[in-house]
Amino acid sequence: MLKLKSVAIDTYKENVAYLHRDCPLYRSEGFQALMKIEIFIEGNGDPVLAILNIVDDTSIVKVDEIGLSEQAFQQLGKSEGVSTYIEPAEPPLSLKAVHRKISGEKLSREDFQMITRDILQNRYSKMEIAAFLVSSSHTGLDRDEIYYLTEAMANTGEKLTWGEPMVVDKHCIGGIPGNRTSMLIVPIVAAYGLLIPKTSSRAITSPAGTADTMEVLANVEIPIEEMKKIVKKERGMLTWGGTAHLSPVDDILISVERPLAMDSVGQMVASILSKKIAAGSSHLLLDIPIGPSAKIHQMHDAIKLKKIFEFVGDKLGLYIEVLITDGSQPIGNGIGPVLEARDVMQILNNDAEAPQDLKEKALQLAGRILEFDPKMRGGKGYETACEILHSGKALAKMQAIIKAQGAHHYQLKSDALIFEVKADKTGTVSQIDNLQMANIASLAGAPIDKFAGVDLIHKVGAKVKEGDTLYKIYATFQSDFEFARNLAVRDCGYQIASVI
Amino acid sequence: MLKLKSVAIDTYKENVAYLHRDCPLYRSEGFQALMKIEIFIEGNGDPVLAILNIVDDTSIVKVDEIGLSEQAFQQLGKSEGVSTYIEPAEPPLSLKAVHRKISGEKLSREDFQMITRDILQNRYSKMEIAAFLVSSSHTGLDRDEIYYLTEAMANTGEKLTWGEPMVVDKHCIGGIPGNRTSMLIVPIVAAYGLLIPKTSSRAITSPAGTADTMEVLANVEIPIEEMKKIVKKERGMLTWGGTAHLSPVDDILISVERPLAMDSVGQMVASILSKKIAAGSSHLLLDIPIGPSAKIHQMHDAIKLKKIFEFVGDKLGLYIEVLITDGSQPIGNGIGPVLEARDVMQILNNDAEAPQDLKEKALQLAGRILEFDPKMRGGKGYETACEILHSGKALAKMQAIIKAQGAHHYQLKSDALIFEVKADKTGTVSQIDNLQMANIASLAGAPIDKFAGVDLIHKVGAKVKEGDTLYKIYATFQSDFEFARNLAVRDCGYQIASVI
Repeated sequence: MLKLKSVAIDTYKENVAYLHRDCPLYRSEGFQALMKIEIFIEGNGDPVLAILNIVDDTSIVKVDEIGLSEQAFQQLGKSEGVSTYIEPAEPPLSLKAVHRKISGEKLSREDFQMITRDILQNRYSKMEIAAFLVSSSHTGLDRDEIYYLTEAMANTGEKLTWGEPMVVDKHCIGGIPGNRTSMLIVPIVAAYGLLIPKTSSRAITSPAGTADTMEVLANVEIPIEEMKKIVKKERGMLTWGGTAHLSPVDDILISVERPLAMDSVGQMVASILSKKIAAGSSHLLLDIPIGPSAKIHQMHDAIKLKKIFEFVGDKLGLYIEVLITDGSQPIGNGIGPVLEARDVMQILNNDAEAPQDLKEKALQLAGRILEFDPKMRGGKGYETACEILHSGKALAKMQAIIKAQGAHHYQLKSDALIFEVKADKTGTVSQIDNLQMANIASLAGAPIDKFAGVDLIHKVGAKVKEGDTLYKIYATFQSDFEFARNLAVRDCGYQIASVI
Repeated sequence: MLKLKSVAIDTYKENVAYLHRDCPLYRSEGFQALMKIEIFIEGNGDPVLAILNIVDDTSIVKVDEIGLSEQAFQQLGKSEGVSTYIEPAEPPLSLKAVHRKISGEKLSREDFQMITRDILQNRYSKMEIAAFLVSSSHTGLDRDEIYYLTEAMANTGEKLTWGEPMVVDKHCIGGIPGNRTSMLIVPIVAAYGLLIPKTSSRAITSPAGTADTMEVLANVEIPIEEMKKIVKKERGMLTWGGTAHLSPVDDILISVERPLAMDSVGQMVASILSKKIAAGSSHLLLDIPIGPSAKIHQMHDAIKLKKIFEFVGDKLGLYIEVLITDGSQPIGNGIGPVLEARDVMQILNNDAEAPQDLKEKALQLAGRILEFDPKMRGGKGYETACEILHSGKALAKMQAIIKAQGAHHYQLKSDALIFEVKADKTGTVSQIDNLQMANIASLAGAPIDKFAGVDLIHKVGAKVKEGDTLYKIYATFQSDFEFARNLAVRDCGYQIASVI
């Protein structure tokens, strides 16, 4: 028996256990570094799984102790000093299914249920998750398999219920910087009266997610009971989905997809739809932007993806409408939480300086969502959305939602480090690279530094003279500033076509 | 600048860095748990890469310190307290090639060179290595790609040279418990006079590797200079290959393949041949056992594998002869280091109780190796091998090699825990499952506990009566003993056909 100890090391979504090299169990019983072990407490139900590290310092763990990293200790939920015993973990049974997938076989509904259950119970190491992701990427999953995976993932966590038959939602597959339409759509749709309890993610690889940007204006980490009160009163909300523990397996998969830069169709569909189903949505408007630097480059790929979303949505009782949109450049001017929040508030305020592309796109999408309402006449959604925005009803609704969630007070920093990227010739802006602009804004510190990012002055089609400012980089920290500036100097992300 | 600290945690082949949560760099500059970072020292050349863990205890690292796990600290090679700076690591460039492989493309020689270089420099996380392995498994690598990978791996580490044109070697692709032929072949071939400086591995997933078994009799961790002296004098040796740092990328790949239970053809060929080429071999006899519970089940798969070995060997100037052998059951009686060493010494002593199947197989293989000698008449190798064994020359050579490497003194334990597995009916042993016997021996504690393992009393074809002992399980530790016994009770691995 070993005494439990909490080791104050944060290992994020990977449990680590610490055993002293002189512990009698080490080697004599075959425990070795990087092995997966199970930590049991008598009468405590399920063991906790962790990767083993070997310690040579008794100030970290003594020879009769087993240390657990912070998350693993929390999971076990016991106090220090209680007696534990450890065993080498059996490899998860569902790994056999992963090996069958690697060999090119089609997996069954039960296979995906077992895989997601084992991942949820922490039985998969990061390597094993990587193996699953790679085996199911590219041509790896057919649409039945995507349906099984989505269903299994949706069933792993909490499920929200809203007590109404129609719960509308909106999602974009991502990849376009700016593009903060949800923060306009929610107040418009909620002001109209449809129920739109929108949960969003924080940035995964991008310079800002909707949750990061909304957090500039209001608290987004809201307990579920509180969410229900807000939505009952306001018909809408803009909160972070993480609090709700929806599709927790998705969060674990993302923690491996992100460093691997994996973004396969099957995983994308399962990730998005499992979260929507767990969030209790009945109607979803899905935005698929296409463009040379968007996630989807070609119309035929967008249409293929659209059909997969529709197939899986129909199977799982979620009505999906897909809109294929222009993803050839960033939408709006700001890239980064504070700059994007500024764009959104300019539009809600009907400010003349507001970015027209973001406004127009949000109105189009909101209009389509309003037409989910059987009472809305076909083709009239857009007009209604315009009326709600221009009348100030959308602004009032946004202010009410902000107040309900708890307002934050931010403003653009006066002492920010600013670098202006200039046109190197006279002509017309012909292209803006989404990925490059996202990289520059990320290096500048977004989204962790909420003030950091990029502010676009000229967009595609603008006529510029040599020396005109194309965009400004904002940063708070000198090192971030230099990383971002150096990248922009190497490749500014803009192409300018000479006037002929 | 952060002060360097050594954190006494052994994280095996994964570098870990420890940063305090209150360190001003954390979050403000975007450093987060599980990120890969580079640790630089002014004027110190290459940075060291590590995965970041966040610490909440100043007794592990202080807020102005960066801690490194034991291996990472060693790699950096500096003392505690020196000033370092850290940066987020750029993703390795060669990951783009891995993504191309995931999409089904064929990779170039340069791609494999870049991938192996990045892996060697610790730029790949375990997840990224898993992605590479899965992408190149199954139908993933064609024979050109296997050749490129083998070549790139062979070029990453040390290379041994022996100063003679013919350096013979022997290898088995594994999967058959017992089967300790190398320890018989080396003394026979060395006694004949061919140069056979055999380096072997320790067990990866099996109950014993040749290095583990040889270690029962002699020291196997021998510095390269010492190896050369032994081989000059004795014409042969039986040492652990790990000391020589041959194909170190292979060791890193294995540290991921093992927990993933991945064993793809391309990786197997590259692993084996890169080590042989780096070890300076000119002629290799390769043993491919086939059987229902061997690695290769069907003759046509064995022949396909044979051709890949021949193709890659020819490209890289290593002459390979492949022997396809019977892998239908364990070879020899003992499974586990001490029990296998006993079998080997019985054969060398021409003991009447020696296992005949192991002896016969070793003589066959040794005979083929002797025919690598241009002076040996075709078909006469086997006879010569028999003569060397029966005359006691092989025993004398083995004793000389043991002495040169440094003799160890082990014997079978008298106080071992023993469980006898009995026949549940009368009949003929019709099948013995290699995998199950290996699992039972591993659970009993082999190879870490050198005394542990399984001793087979009856092999395929033996007539047994109900209640006869089929095999004995040996263990030292009670918990190991129970694990192994429980597994054997659940499935003893033997099939007995009733007498009709």
